[in-house]
Amino acid sequence: MVYVILVYDIDESRVAKVLKICRKYLIWVQRSVFEGEITDGNLELLQAELGRLIKDEDSVMFYITPTKKNFKRKTMGKSKEEGRNIL
Amino acid sequence: MVYVILVYDIDESRVAKVLKICRKYLIWVQRSVFEGEITDGNLELLQAELGRLIKDEDSVMFYITPTKKNFKRKTMGKSKEEGRNIL
Repeated sequence: MVYVILVYDIDESRVAKVLKICRKYLIWVQRSVFEGEITDGNLELLQAELGRLIKDEDSVMFYITPTKKNFKRKTMGKSKEEGRNIL
Repeated sequence: MVYVILVYDIDESRVAKVLKICRKYLIWVQRSVFEGEITDGNLELLQAELGRLIKDEDSVMFYITPTKKNFKRKTMGKSKEEGRNIL
């Protein structure tokens, strides 16, 4: 099990499909940002699904850490999940 | 000194100014994502500058960790700084 922060920059024509895939595995915390605990197996599945969909001009970045205790998160302005504190 | 990943979702009317501020302190790695080592003092300055600019409907999230060694980064598709590997 690892903790992942996923950020993407996807062409308009594909972003809805990428969003749908990411929501199956992670929590949507900002317009193009997802977070959450995920098994190594599911992380591979997620990357494979995205790999079949995205094109070279798209970008998906994964920040992978063993535990969410390795970082603090601070939000300025609105946060996507009002009232639901991830950390 | 800490390592920060900054992600933002800003209204079109303010995003250029936010980008300009973030680039003074961190490295631009994806459309709305910045990363880099930063002193605690500069992190406070960055947050204060952003705080004076953003509105409630904007969102800036900071993932703050003592060292970038806590993260592995994987990029699918294009990365902003071709050839320059941050992690």
